[in-house]
Amino acid sequence: MPHLTLEYSGNLAGFAAADALLDINRALLASGHFEEADIKSRAVALEACRIGVHDLPRGFVHAKLAILSGRSSEEKQQLSELSLQALADSAALPPGMEVQLCVEIQEIDRASYRKRLIAR
Amino acid sequence: MPHLTLEYSGNLAGFAAADALLDINRALLASGHFEEADIKSRAVALEACRIGVHDLPRGFVHAKLAILSGRSSEEKQQLSELSLQALADSAALPPGMEVQLCVEIQEIDRASYRKRLIAR
Amino acid sequence: MPHLTLEYSGNLAGFAAADALLDINRALLASGHFEEADIKSRAVALEACRIGVHDLPRGFVHAKLAILSGRSSEEKQQLSELSLQALADSAALPPGMEVQLCVEIQEIDRASYRKRLIAR
Repeated sequence: MPHLTLEYSGNLAGFAAADALLDINRALLASGHFEEADIKSRAVALEACRIGVHDLPRGFVHAKLAILSGRSSEEKQQLSELSLQALADSAALPPGMEVQLCVEIQEIDRASYRKRLIAR
Repeated sequence: MPHLTLEYSGNLAGFAAADALLDINRALLASGHFEEADIKSRAVALEACRIGVHDLPRGFVHAKLAILSGRSSEEKQQLSELSLQALADSAALPPGMEVQLCVEIQEIDRASYRKRLIAR
Repeated sequence: MPHLTLEYSGNLAGFAAADALLDINRALLASGHFEEADIKSRAVALEACRIGVHDLPRGFVHAKLAILSGRSSEEKQQLSELSLQALADSAALPPGMEVQLCVEIQEIDRASYRKRLIAR
């Protein structure tokens, strides 16, 4: 916790997913809400995607931030906004396209979340 | 919003994911609930998957439709059913297999959802 | 239902995802809560991921178990714990790394879940 998933349409030539992950992780850490090692982020390029029904130059980057339940609505909005800002600052997007950047906050049921650290 | 994710087991030879996405998007648009450009859909082939514990010819296609919170239960059921119907109509499935088609509706917390459109 | 998704960082050399899926499916079946053919599991290797902000030998395996809404908190905790145990027993993890194993339980809205079985 938290788990971040960054999905992006495969047509975003030049989008540096690894850099975006690091930038968002830094922003999440700077928020003061999380331990450094707990921030687990991944990026997934979507080879098969479709926006709407028309063939237009469109793309998207969608971030899902999953956090344990119990945070206030204000905290969730703050986390969403700083993630979006970090993404917008980081993302080198191709010209000539409409790209939707979006962030959603998901809650993970705290009572049933389980974690084990294996270090050998 | 909405975000559709279509996961399918990698053993569905001939399954045309891109066509299924377009057909579902058309059905979602025809429902009147969404703006055309807001319908963001992706398909993911699952190379590593396992149904149950027996080695049998089985597959699945699973659609997750994520919509902003606040819609009625009736609307969610309607959206689920029309997505399943579009999927069933679209899906060319291999013979000799049991294939489960399923649809779930997920809610995205409306208050913390953020979106920005980048057009250059 | 249930749907299990096992995500793991791509740096876990030797992690046998297919074996882990089967072991978890067996544990879920043994719990008595599910029909055998309903347990649909997939594993996804994450090529682009980032834990925290430092370059350290870290990895993770994250299991999401999505079940229909309505089960008690005790059942959800039990399912989370048995999944974690099966994962820990199964996972051959590389030495010299810190690996976080985590399990979350997600609820699928029961009223709008739809499924159709195609057998030809």
